[in-house]
Amino acid sequence: MSNTLNQSSQIKQMVTAALTEDIGDEDVTANLLDDSAVAFAHILCREDAVLCGQAWFDETFRQCDSTVHIEWQLNDGDAMRAGQTVCEISGNAKAMVTAERTALNFLQTLSGTATVTRHYMTAMTGTECKLLDTRKTIPLLRNAQKYAVVCGGGVNHRIGLYDGILIKENHIEAAGSVKVAIERMRAYRPGMKIEIEVENLAQLEDALSNKADILLLDNFSLADTKKAVEITAGRAILEASGGFEYDDLAAVAQTGVDFISVGALTKHLRSIDFSMRFSSSFQK
Amino acid sequence: MSNTLNQSSQIKQMVTAALTEDIGDEDVTANLLDDSAVAFAHILCREDAVLCGQAWFDETFRQCDSTVHIEWQLNDGDAMRAGQTVCEISGNAKAMVTAERTALNFLQTLSGTATVTRHYMTAMTGTECKLLDTRKTIPLLRNAQKYAVVCGGGVNHRIGLYDGILIKENHIEAAGSVKVAIERMRAYRPGMKIEIEVENLAQLEDALSNKADILLLDNFSLADTKKAVEITAGRAILEASGGFEYDDLAAVAQTGVDFISVGALTKHLRSIDFSMRFSSSFQK
Amino acid sequence: MSNTLNQSSQIKQMVTAALTEDIGDEDVTANLLDDSAVAFAHILCREDAVLCGQAWFDETFRQCDSTVHIEWQLNDGDAMRAGQTVCEISGNAKAMVTAERTALNFLQTLSGTATVTRHYMTAMTGTECKLLDTRKTIPLLRNAQKYAVVCGGGVNHRIGLYDGILIKENHIEAAGSVKVAIERMRAYRPGMKIEIEVENLAQLEDALSNKADILLLDNFSLADTKKAVEITAGRAILEASGGFEYDDLAAVAQTGVDFISVGALTKHLRSIDFSMRFSSSFQK
Amino acid sequence: MSNTLNQSSQIKQMVTAALTEDIGDEDVTANLLDDSAVAFAHILCREDAVLCGQAWFDETFRQCDSTVHIEWQLNDGDAMRAGQTVCEISGNAKAMVTAERTALNFLQTLSGTATVTRHYMTAMTGTECKLLDTRKTIPLLRNAQKYAVVCGGGVNHRIGLYDGILIKENHIEAAGSVKVAIERMRAYRPGMKIEIEVENLAQLEDALSNKADILLLDNFSLADTKKAVEITAGRAILEASGGFEYDDLAAVAQTGVDFISVGALTKHLRSIDFSMRFSSSFQK
Amino acid sequence: MSNTLNQSSQIKQMVTAALTEDIGDEDVTANLLDDSAVAFAHILCREDAVLCGQAWFDETFRQCDSTVHIEWQLNDGDAMRAGQTVCEISGNAKAMVTAERTALNFLQTLSGTATVTRHYMTAMTGTECKLLDTRKTIPLLRNAQKYAVVCGGGVNHRIGLYDGILIKENHIEAAGSVKVAIERMRAYRPGMKIEIEVENLAQLEDALSNKADILLLDNFSLADTKKAVEITAGRAILEASGGFEYDDLAAVAQTGVDFISVGALTKHLRSIDFSMRFSSSFQK
Amino acid sequence: MSNTLNQSSQIKQMVTAALTEDIGDEDVTANLLDDSAVAFAHILCREDAVLCGQAWFDETFRQCDSTVHIEWQLNDGDAMRAGQTVCEISGNAKAMVTAERTALNFLQTLSGTATVTRHYMTAMTGTECKLLDTRKTIPLLRNAQKYAVVCGGGVNHRIGLYDGILIKENHIEAAGSVKVAIERMRAYRPGMKIEIEVENLAQLEDALSNKADILLLDNFSLADTKKAVEITAGRAILEASGGFEYDDLAAVAQTGVDFISVGALTKHLRSIDFSMRFSSSFQK
Repeated sequence: MSNTLNQSSQIKQMVTAALTEDIGDEDVTANLLDDSAVAFAHILCREDAVLCGQAWFDETFRQCDSTVHIEWQLNDGDAMRAGQTVCEISGNAKAMVTAERTALNFLQTLSGTATVTRHYMTAMTGTECKLLDTRKTIPLLRNAQKYAVVCGGGVNHRIGLYDGILIKENHIEAAGSVKVAIERMRAYRPGMKIEIEVENLAQLEDALSNKADILLLDNFSLADTKKAVEITAGRAILEASGGFEYDDLAAVAQTGVDFISVGALTKHLRSIDFSMRFSSSFQK
Repeated sequence: MSNTLNQSSQIKQMVTAALTEDIGDEDVTANLLDDSAVAFAHILCREDAVLCGQAWFDETFRQCDSTVHIEWQLNDGDAMRAGQTVCEISGNAKAMVTAERTALNFLQTLSGTATVTRHYMTAMTGTECKLLDTRKTIPLLRNAQKYAVVCGGGVNHRIGLYDGILIKENHIEAAGSVKVAIERMRAYRPGMKIEIEVENLAQLEDALSNKADILLLDNFSLADTKKAVEITAGRAILEASGGFEYDDLAAVAQTGVDFISVGALTKHLRSIDFSMRFSSSFQK
Repeated sequence: MSNTLNQSSQIKQMVTAALTEDIGDEDVTANLLDDSAVAFAHILCREDAVLCGQAWFDETFRQCDSTVHIEWQLNDGDAMRAGQTVCEISGNAKAMVTAERTALNFLQTLSGTATVTRHYMTAMTGTECKLLDTRKTIPLLRNAQKYAVVCGGGVNHRIGLYDGILIKENHIEAAGSVKVAIERMRAYRPGMKIEIEVENLAQLEDALSNKADILLLDNFSLADTKKAVEITAGRAILEASGGFEYDDLAAVAQTGVDFISVGALTKHLRSIDFSMRFSSSFQK
Repeated sequence: MSNTLNQSSQIKQMVTAALTEDIGDEDVTANLLDDSAVAFAHILCREDAVLCGQAWFDETFRQCDSTVHIEWQLNDGDAMRAGQTVCEISGNAKAMVTAERTALNFLQTLSGTATVTRHYMTAMTGTECKLLDTRKTIPLLRNAQKYAVVCGGGVNHRIGLYDGILIKENHIEAAGSVKVAIERMRAYRPGMKIEIEVENLAQLEDALSNKADILLLDNFSLADTKKAVEITAGRAILEASGGFEYDDLAAVAQTGVDFISVGALTKHLRSIDFSMRFSSSFQK
Repeated sequence: MSNTLNQSSQIKQMVTAALTEDIGDEDVTANLLDDSAVAFAHILCREDAVLCGQAWFDETFRQCDSTVHIEWQLNDGDAMRAGQTVCEISGNAKAMVTAERTALNFLQTLSGTATVTRHYMTAMTGTECKLLDTRKTIPLLRNAQKYAVVCGGGVNHRIGLYDGILIKENHIEAAGSVKVAIERMRAYRPGMKIEIEVENLAQLEDALSNKADILLLDNFSLADTKKAVEITAGRAILEASGGFEYDDLAAVAQTGVDFISVGALTKHLRSIDFSMRFSSSFQK
Repeated sequence: MSNTLNQSSQIKQMVTAALTEDIGDEDVTANLLDDSAVAFAHILCREDAVLCGQAWFDETFRQCDSTVHIEWQLNDGDAMRAGQTVCEISGNAKAMVTAERTALNFLQTLSGTATVTRHYMTAMTGTECKLLDTRKTIPLLRNAQKYAVVCGGGVNHRIGLYDGILIKENHIEAAGSVKVAIERMRAYRPGMKIEIEVENLAQLEDALSNKADILLLDNFSLADTKKAVEITAGRAILEASGGFEYDDLAAVAQTGVDFISVGALTKHLRSIDFSMRFSSSFQK
């Protein structure tokens, strides 16, 4: 798949911060290593999973040794089999030993999110429904996790509060009515679609009559979700939401909603098991 | 329990970065809210868990509204029951709506790590063995997760490469022998204990004869772990390591090792479910 | 009007940077002033204009003297008459002398953008058409200028490349067709409207048939603009664009387009003339 | 002309900040472009003007694509004719599309300041008088605008409060007398010239008798300015100041003052119109 | 004496950096202390010296405990006697223990520079000559040391390369002649005095005839220094330079030069011995 | 000797900060130099000393001219003789003139600390005792000075409060007893040795009976130091501390203590005299 994240300065800053929290003032034990020895290593994936995090992994090694060479055999978004070599690395041995854990921490974390995303999608096979992420993410990893969701095959909901409008109960109360809330938002930022959270079918009808672009069905029963699809009849995009887990998805997807959003994709994490294997000896 | 993390400037920076990734240039929808309305809210925990993350949660609201007032009914490290109110919040309504998700993301993440730590410890009840974390952490959350492990009742292994020595195979190879590696490290940083990774009983004897302070038993069988305890006979601290999960811990703890280190504590994450409930209407 | 910018940390950083570029290591001449004298001053606007920039102005004085007191007699977005006092300031005399120029530079710049925006809008009176800004802004002032446009009565187009989709010729060429480009963007970020730039009526029809949400009419003649409005017949939002100046606006607005975007609002700047008047003597 | 600005780290930071405010987390639409296609483009100037901003322009493209190649046909400070190609660019197509607006924003802004500076100087032809800038600048662009003034042929007054002394009414009042103010400043920073603001001929005589190095004639009439030149008779440098516009300059310059300072150079901005033209198709 | 440094944001950043390098992620041992105990302490100076560094000292404690109270009995620039209490501190005990070393490091360093400055000045008593510092400073402490020199009674030469002109041999060679070098600098930055380094009396005459403002006499013999004073006869300011130590100063000062610059003031450091004494027990 | 500092990002930040404090917005005088001339220079050491600071020196020139070439004839930790050339430099002349002072300031400072360390060690020749540094360092130079001590042949005590435990009187009082303090620290951070400060022989026996790893003998008389060695009999590491100067060291070292810690190494500074000599003319 195509890499859709192009913000290299952001990746550089994340990697610098991650190396700083691991290395601090010095890798004390690394003083045992020769300053100029060269090492060869490869990264093994130890379980079936989806790869994600190449740019962070590469940047980590590069910040420790600008001359390191990394040869990937897969791209972000590709499926890996347990035992598969995903890349080969050569460079300064001391720098590679110091960078190893930080680089793997990025790779195991982001591949974890990509992998769970792809897994959840298997529940929706045969439907047109798509899997959306949420703003329930691990602090400081928002953009990276959003990228991992795309690598896994999911779709990004708004990245943050700045690039999408989502009108909730508090906003409606402050505006006075759904109608006023929608009108004010449409006037304020005409280039954005208006999404509105509805809690029952009456609110859904109100939102539709005021021409909301997207309706977030909050904790609707399956029956009500089906009714919402029928009533809406294509007049708005429908997003089902409600703490769904894997086993819930198939039935919801079959109601005909356009999207299901799942906080579990990015608020939980099951890291993927990778290991770095050095060739038997470092070469001076 | 006593809060052992006292680095407020670090927490401030983390919170600023997390708010920035969520808010960007503006919370667009928040323009519907009244600038000066006041809100009252409380945080519910929706499952049995261990609380962790108060300082990050407080700082998030404070950066959005310096006059916010938060009243906690529990401390970090305390057990929560499903349905329990953990704190009450009052302040500027608009700021509270904007801060909500970022504050909860910190709380759900760190409480997740504290909770899994306490759960793993139940497997070791009745032994003297202690639960250690590792450097397999979520990037940018190292110190925060280490703090969560302590809140859960675990013990911190070294925080990073700077505050502890761990001699592995590559280091020994570069130094020429276990003996030379230990001597050089002891001379370089006399205030630090020397930990060395051993892969079998022969290496364990070598390390002991060179007076290593701590031995990391890497992927030892249960039988070999027991032998290691007997051979060592108190001459060094023993840490068992090897991809352990919950069901493995009881047997390993009963061998008499001093510590078991578990990467799963901090590389995986099962966030705790919290929700923020606003009082029915904002007051102007 | 309501202040729609709520990112105080961003304003803090801008002010710190602006003070740094003016003060460097020290206001040398300020060493002549008494450290503890107190001053009273007021700010005069010396021409008819629209006020904008209070938050930056306040923050500048506050960073130099945390106890300063500023009393505004107008709000951002209000009209000022030549000679009108807009605020009164009291605080440490030395800090006020040092902060004066930086604070006024923010006020004169942002009021300049708000004022020109309101002026351009007079050309569109009697139509439903709205005035949009662009990404042609002064470097490092994007968000502040976007805020000033709103204070002046204009509407913000996308803030940057991250919060809106605008498909141009290069994008269509790379995607292969308008149809594919729109489909891919709709799938990638379903919460965003799709805007597409069209250069003639044929392209307009193509975009409409592929259900683009917004059409940017690039350098259309007045006649073609009118035809575009007729053909579109409400099926999409229409934005006219093309290096318009004040005298062009009335005719374009009367064609019935929804928006006219004007780069001149934010790429040129005519600062407003303010002056700060200290009371006759500083009090020790 | 020779490039007098040598602070590349400052330019890097400005460009990073400008790209960040435009790109945020991602150029969403750029996902339609091929990651590896190559593009060729050139920059046209669309009006007669003075070029300024090459270093910022280059750095912007370089931060998006470290391998970009830019071939300039002019230098900063050179005159451009409407329609002239100023540079040619080749590199990664996707990066170039993303960088375009930010790079042009720097170029149009700084060329605007250089151009107005050169224009103002035409009013002073035939005199020895020089054109000075002021501290009335656009926030965050102080050093860049000061550089643009030099490219346009003007002279920099002090950059900020740190590299020049300017004694005003408040300073004199606090010191007790002109004499004491000058003595204290001369003792405090002996390497700096002392400039003092005078509002009438009596104050001018006082300043001269206390050996001020530079006199700022604040809002002097033309007649008084001539008298000031006669009285001073070369004993100090004279700077005329007072909200001058283009039409005022010739007469003031002919009085024989050494410098005229003009806030309009840097507080107003008339951006220059550039456009970037891509070759017909990107090459894969 | 009056505190001439007014850049509090710079001091904040220095203190944050200094606390970070000392505390890192945590003061491990401080976990033994009670979180809420209160302590009282005072700072003793253990040798005769000049006080300098209050703002850094205060900021260090404040960043660790925003409620700390510090009562100074002396001001920066005041003489201290061995055994004298210089301030009293009360606040959170844990924060005070953590902050102690960093706060004292600032105080002992800056008081060291102020003290040696005052000592050097005793050698020049009875002359009009003043003591100048140089750019030979400890990296990252430039502005702080410049402030300490003023506290000690010395005078600041230019702070850096940006606020003063000093033409050396390389510059003259590149310009072609002293005359051209001075003319170009005078035209480029008319508000600055021109200082030129001369190595013999012939160069001195050349510089004088070209109206340099300040002459730096580089390694002149005492005899030549006297001749330089006679030849110059008040036409320029004279600064003697040449690796002077304390014993050299009296004779040089008596030649009649205006300034002697001494690198030793800021390139060497003899820290002053302070200690912090806590009251016998912390109060819970 | 082997370079043990591998944190290049930290060095980059220090150098950027040091260049910023020296150059500010511009090296004004450098405008006299040709932009493209090339220069050759070498660095002379003007006194017998130990070299330290190559990485900072190189980075300083590199940040001013990425193409500079520096050829060292010695390594950090090597002895230099007065008059010896330590390296040769070629690159852009203008950049080299601007970088010179900042680069030399790093070299003279760090070589100063390395040199005094080696000098102090001569007092301990013939003993097994080693020389330790302390946390009494120059603010912002902690890690750099710690590295210089190693280059001089000394040993690093803890770098800061985060990588070593040192229990003092306040900690014991808060814990209630030495026994409790040691137990709590051992449980909190099992990988660290426990050091405890003792003020007399009774406290020493208490600490030994509680199995402290390291005892800091605070201001012990020589006689008591000898008794401490006898009593301890190898059961703990002994560190003598107490404001020692060079003449004290031999006697203390001969008592048999393992380490002597000396604050004077890093709190005072006697910079080493280097000069940079340019070849006679710059080449265009």
